[in-house]
Amino acid sequence: MCGSTQQVAATKFVEPGSFSSNGSMIVVSNRLPFVLKRNEISGQLERKASAGGLVTAVAPVVINGRGVWVGWPGMHMDDPTEKIPESDPNDRTPTAGLLSSKVVAVHVDPTVFDSYYNGCCNGTFWPLFHSMPDRATFIADHWRAYATVNQEFAAQSVNALEKIHKEQSGQPNGTPLVWVHDYHLMLAANWIRQSAEEKNLRLKLGFFLHIPFPPWDIFRLFPWADEILQGMLGCDMVGFHIQDYCLNFVDCCQRSLGCRVDRKNLLVEHGGRTVRVRPLPIGIPFDRFVALSESAPKVMLTNQKIVLGVDRLDYTKGLVHRLKAFEMLLEKHPQHREQVTMLQIAVPSRTDVREYQDLKLEMDQLVGRINGRFTTPNWSPIRYIYGCVSQEELAAFYREAAVALVTPLRDGMNLVAKEFVACQIKVPPGVLIVSPFAGAGEMMHEALICNPYEIDEAAEVIHRALTMPEDERTLRMNHLRRRERIYDVNYWMKSFLQVMGSLEERDAVGATTMHPVTMDDFDDYLSKYIGDNHKLALLLDYDGTLAPIATHPDLAILPLETKNVLQRLSNMSDVYIAIISGRNVNNVKSMVGIDGITYAGNHGLEILHPDGSKFVHPMPVEFEGKVAGLMQSLQDQVCNEGAWVENKGALLTFHYREAPMESRPQMVEQARKLIEEAGFKACAAHCAIEAKPPVEWNKGRASIYILRTAFGLDWSERIRIIYAGDDATDEDAMKALKGMAATFRVASSHIIRTSAERRLPSTDSVLTMLKWVERHLSRRKPRNSVDISSRFRRGSTGIAMEMSFTSPEKQKIEQQVA
Amino acid sequence: MCGSTQQVAATKFVEPGSFSSNGSMIVVSNRLPFVLKRNEISGQLERKASAGGLVTAVAPVVINGRGVWVGWPGMHMDDPTEKIPESDPNDRTPTAGLLSSKVVAVHVDPTVFDSYYNGCCNGTFWPLFHSMPDRATFIADHWRAYATVNQEFAAQSVNALEKIHKEQSGQPNGTPLVWVHDYHLMLAANWIRQSAEEKNLRLKLGFFLHIPFPPWDIFRLFPWADEILQGMLGCDMVGFHIQDYCLNFVDCCQRSLGCRVDRKNLLVEHGGRTVRVRPLPIGIPFDRFVALSESAPKVMLTNQKIVLGVDRLDYTKGLVHRLKAFEMLLEKHPQHREQVTMLQIAVPSRTDVREYQDLKLEMDQLVGRINGRFTTPNWSPIRYIYGCVSQEELAAFYREAAVALVTPLRDGMNLVAKEFVACQIKVPPGVLIVSPFAGAGEMMHEALICNPYEIDEAAEVIHRALTMPEDERTLRMNHLRRRERIYDVNYWMKSFLQVMGSLEERDAVGATTMHPVTMDDFDDYLSKYIGDNHKLALLLDYDGTLAPIATHPDLAILPLETKNVLQRLSNMSDVYIAIISGRNVNNVKSMVGIDGITYAGNHGLEILHPDGSKFVHPMPVEFEGKVAGLMQSLQDQVCNEGAWVENKGALLTFHYREAPMESRPQMVEQARKLIEEAGFKACAAHCAIEAKPPVEWNKGRASIYILRTAFGLDWSERIRIIYAGDDATDEDAMKALKGMAATFRVASSHIIRTSAERRLPSTDSVLTMLKWVERHLSRRKPRNSVDISSRFRRGSTGIAMEMSFTSPEKQKIEQQVA
Repeated sequence: MCGSTQQVAATKFVEPGSFSSNGSMIVVSNRLPFVLKRNEISGQLERKASAGGLVTAVAPVVINGRGVWVGWPGMHMDDPTEKIPESDPNDRTPTAGLLSSKVVAVHVDPTVFDSYYNGCCNGTFWPLFHSMPDRATFIADHWRAYATVNQEFAAQSVNALEKIHKEQSGQPNGTPLVWVHDYHLMLAANWIRQSAEEKNLRLKLGFFLHIPFPPWDIFRLFPWADEILQGMLGCDMVGFHIQDYCLNFVDCCQRSLGCRVDRKNLLVEHGGRTVRVRPLPIGIPFDRFVALSESAPKVMLTNQKIVLGVDRLDYTKGLVHRLKAFEMLLEKHPQHREQVTMLQIAVPSRTDVREYQDLKLEMDQLVGRINGRFTTPNWSPIRYIYGCVSQEELAAFYREAAVALVTPLRDGMNLVAKEFVACQIKVPPGVLIVSPFAGAGEMMHEALICNPYEIDEAAEVIHRALTMPEDERTLRMNHLRRRERIYDVNYWMKSFLQVMGSLEERDAVGATTMHPVTMDDFDDYLSKYIGDNHKLALLLDYDGTLAPIATHPDLAILPLETKNVLQRLSNMSDVYIAIISGRNVNNVKSMVGIDGITYAGNHGLEILHPDGSKFVHPMPVEFEGKVAGLMQSLQDQVCNEGAWVENKGALLTFHYREAPMESRPQMVEQARKLIEEAGFKACAAHCAIEAKPPVEWNKGRASIYILRTAFGLDWSERIRIIYAGDDATDEDAMKALKGMAATFRVASSHIIRTSAERRLPSTDSVLTMLKWVERHLSRRKPRNSVDISSRFRRGSTGIAMEMSFTSPEKQKIEQQVA
Repeated sequence: MCGSTQQVAATKFVEPGSFSSNGSMIVVSNRLPFVLKRNEISGQLERKASAGGLVTAVAPVVINGRGVWVGWPGMHMDDPTEKIPESDPNDRTPTAGLLSSKVVAVHVDPTVFDSYYNGCCNGTFWPLFHSMPDRATFIADHWRAYATVNQEFAAQSVNALEKIHKEQSGQPNGTPLVWVHDYHLMLAANWIRQSAEEKNLRLKLGFFLHIPFPPWDIFRLFPWADEILQGMLGCDMVGFHIQDYCLNFVDCCQRSLGCRVDRKNLLVEHGGRTVRVRPLPIGIPFDRFVALSESAPKVMLTNQKIVLGVDRLDYTKGLVHRLKAFEMLLEKHPQHREQVTMLQIAVPSRTDVREYQDLKLEMDQLVGRINGRFTTPNWSPIRYIYGCVSQEELAAFYREAAVALVTPLRDGMNLVAKEFVACQIKVPPGVLIVSPFAGAGEMMHEALICNPYEIDEAAEVIHRALTMPEDERTLRMNHLRRRERIYDVNYWMKSFLQVMGSLEERDAVGATTMHPVTMDDFDDYLSKYIGDNHKLALLLDYDGTLAPIATHPDLAILPLETKNVLQRLSNMSDVYIAIISGRNVNNVKSMVGIDGITYAGNHGLEILHPDGSKFVHPMPVEFEGKVAGLMQSLQDQVCNEGAWVENKGALLTFHYREAPMESRPQMVEQARKLIEEAGFKACAAHCAIEAKPPVEWNKGRASIYILRTAFGLDWSERIRIIYAGDDATDEDAMKALKGMAATFRVASSHIIRTSAERRLPSTDSVLTMLKWVERHLSRRKPRNSVDISSRFRRGSTGIAMEMSFTSPEKQKIEQQVA
């Protein structure tokens, strides 16, 4: 425990060759697997190795492959270029072989790091993910620092990846693996993927969360919840300890992001990819603990039975409840007085944080009070060690304890439970008590389960453990040890590599990619909304929604099948169609080529109605002259390397989709500047910047205008609306129509936030949706069979009202409403 | 707000005749629909009426039917028999017609009431159900007080029910309806049902929860969570505001109680009954608010736009966050300074509780600071009213506000949002902003949605609301008002009656009763556990598990079909069967009549192995003589009115199942006393008390003994176990085998706690389970195709490990384990 782990002689480390990833592995974690310290005398940097189970299992893979470990070195360095030292020649821990060339130390400004680590990681995510929302703070600055640090980790990881690719060039075998760890780095994966794609670097990305993942109802409190989910979905595989956390995550992806998910096979569709979600319960280096337990000298010289607790001093660990339960035991079962001693080891943690100081104070008082109440001349009920113990001592405690109390209020897994059973080599063995709120409680079935909040009952469980017959104890412990021996930390490492290795395969047990979007995908969401008696208005963006994005606008052709479906829909009496595009209105009309529908161009500044009448948003007079001037200066100053300007009449569009990646940032910045200097608004579009006159008009206002013109003031009572778009400018419409329309964002790339209710992976899936609409409308009952209740059935969860009207009531309400 | 509601002239109350339940309705709520006060001068009790929406809708039903309202009168009375006064002749509120004969005032000891109300209701359930677990206290004494008070409410309700039945006698029409309200009374329903059944009183029981129901991961923290669920499942119908809460409840019933559930139709099976779960979103008296808004004089004499907040001063309401968001608005959008004023009405609440005092202090400071920062000579940004306002004033505020901020951190529904839209009769209207964490946020789609934790974004949403174009405002408000007008509080009342009225029917839309237990019900749970390669041990209780309970043990015959299945199973090579009963071992063997299986009698004190060998637990010598004496004294003193004593050899059983209900409590008490005086242990069984010698032996110890004898010391590695029982004595076995067996409790009546993983409704469903086992074992692959991974797949959620072994690894592990 507690940094003193390097004192432990390395007993039985994993054989270096026993794992080999096909390619190289980049491990990305908040901390490097050692800590840098400056020698106070020599002024040199030195490594302090750590030998946690995770490091033991993971380090050899990095060492043996062409791997790299990316992480914070544990200290802020004035000179970030200062060389990381090699390990001490006497170092026998698993990280000894980690040459400095295999280490990337991430350096962050200390203030930003503090906001990231103490603020966002430990002040927000730690309590929130442990389902203690009241303890969580939500501070925008901390969140920004978190994003900054994650971006830095991502950048360093991509650099490492690039280096590996260069070294590998010519060796076709092996896609490098990037493995991002824990709640500190939930955003990094998305940036790693994006940047790797831009640089054309192959990779497989995995993530593992070491703490619980909370249910949606808790997770959604976090204001930037969507970003977190999408950061994680940047991976190919997202791993958690247990099935419950996986299901919570999948649920959040569906409910917060509107992703399609497959709960049975634990898959999430995101940005056109399928992300696997997997339970990978972590284990311990079982054999090492057995060996420690076999060799550690006796430490407890008492005849009393030991009830053992070992925890970081953290509010999630339920230490106060545990002490009270032990007090209750002594009160209700006095036969244990002088026969039983509780040994509580509390490892200091975050001692500079107020909350942890308060907890320390409460513990001190409670231990004092309980000891004061029961102590006799030769016995004190509680021995309370506030500090660190060596692994060897720990193993001896584990071995000699009659009962281990692992009763956190919430815990991702809890390795103390596993270490205890590993060290229980004595005959007959002791008893493990676990909280149902720890991951370990889900897996270690034969432990006694104890709700830490229930003090009376917890006392009874301890009593039962202390008096359990030998045969039952043996039976339970055998089972527990056997499972942990097989599913140790090496098994966990191997499982991770196996899942990552099988990414391309469709394995025999379950599907590993989402089924493609089919009409069935729309049944649940749309049929409830549209019902049987409403007219339907389809408001559709063109580029990237109906027609696939092309290198030049002229090449973005409407697929014939889509055109045919739209044509047929336009002939149905209860369908109204409007195409709302950033293009010039005549241009979009000619690209679609269907008569009798509405076209809106320039994001709605121009609208062409089916009857031939046209709306043009008034252009402020003073801007009419400026358009030509701005066009000229854009052409002169930024139209090079394939970029060009399009004059759309009421606005200008600067396209840079054919310009090389590396020139774009500067190009965009300069174009923005010119546009803004001319007094126009610069708006981002797909690989383009649009210069708009500063009028309060957008696709949202235009949508409402179109609907009002077509259906009158009370349109919303009589029609249902579907809006689909792929562009940032479509968000205005999704926002304006939120709550009043079914909205789809076509998101094939890295879209972070959307006001749309659902996401679709491609223009193909928009076509599928249109086909669904066609089928639904042709099937539905004649329009006179009114079902008014369906009007009120929507909500983000699908069904709002369960009651349906009987016929006379229906008429009454119709009259009332009319 | 705040008790001042009685000042409001009753504007448009529900027409008394407009609802009529078929029978009579007993409403049970923490508070009566009025408060009693003692007139300080006359010393007489007086009623202070309240006119909340709920009372408005519900009171007429009680008044017009032969209804009764059961509740606490709002004060502790020295003389509980003191008569409740009639209402004031000038009272025009809906409760005016509520004669004192229709009111049952519940009296509770003030200390107990305090633990119940301030302790358990508001200290535990309020924060826990609002998903703020860190604020919740879990104190056993409070929980006991809660149970005591609920029992008293239940007793009073049953008295009222009995009275109604007497009055109705001869009128066949109409089953009385009992409607229990809210988190104060979650246990009452179960006792009401139990007691009504004992007294043979027909009734329909409904429950409605006015606050959120949390997800399982939060709910399960409550140590007595099972009791709560079963208290509510005492009803025929359990109602919540929204679908989400319904699904949370159903999920809890499945995961905590092991009930069979139907998520699609929202049904839970419990104690052989099907309980319906329904979303019944509450509404407001819409027309009354419209009328108030039309008549209320102008109150705000300012030209500034008003941003309105109206809340009880409670930590769930997000007031601090709201003020900070408003501050951010003024900071980031200075154009609103001097143009916009925030009016926050904070109604005092629980002012004697520390937490609420702290909140008040924080509010005071924050208002002061923000006002200090922005105030100009002619404008203060925040007007903060800490106090009550009349309904009329409130309606004027609602009417005149440009924006209403309803941004709780968590809220069951929130009626302020609804009252605001009802009062928005001005043209053009204002804008409603709602938190997604309020029930109202789920239903009022056209409101702007705002996460209160996200201060920056909340400021932007307020800005958007203040600058929203008129057409969009009108559109949204029209929609919102229309929905609330239709789905008002009367609609809610009607919906409740409709659901209760249709209880017996199987309605056209969805099934309303659970499908009977079929073999499919066991697939998920058992096939994962048993797998393809294990021997199976079936440990089965006899009475109430295999054979239906009968009035006399001799009449409890094993159904022929069950016998045949057991016979066939006993012939399968990989099945081992033991019948473990409270009966004498020879008796149970003759009742079952199958050879080649194990029989355990007297709860395992005697065990007859298939090979004819017999185990008899040694009886302490000193008790051998006492058996006859105890038998004699039981026969002499308590065997009357149909009760009798059975001598089972190693123990005695006193049966009272044929004694009349009313004699039982005294009989049981006396029998217990005699048993304990003789030095035996008195154990409860089904309508029986068993006198056991005080040896540490029970069905649990016996089960482990049987398995060890049959399969050797390492039995648990090689076999799978199913245990089924219906009795309290079976709990010992379920507890001992917990984590190592699949356990079923047959629970046809009011079983509160069980250590079993699953519940079954009847002996029939045990037969179905046995048939499933037979089918599964005959279908499975030959035993040499080993699937070791299935051994580790169990957990309360079903799947523990996702990884499966490849074949060489499998062999390796097999060797390692061997």
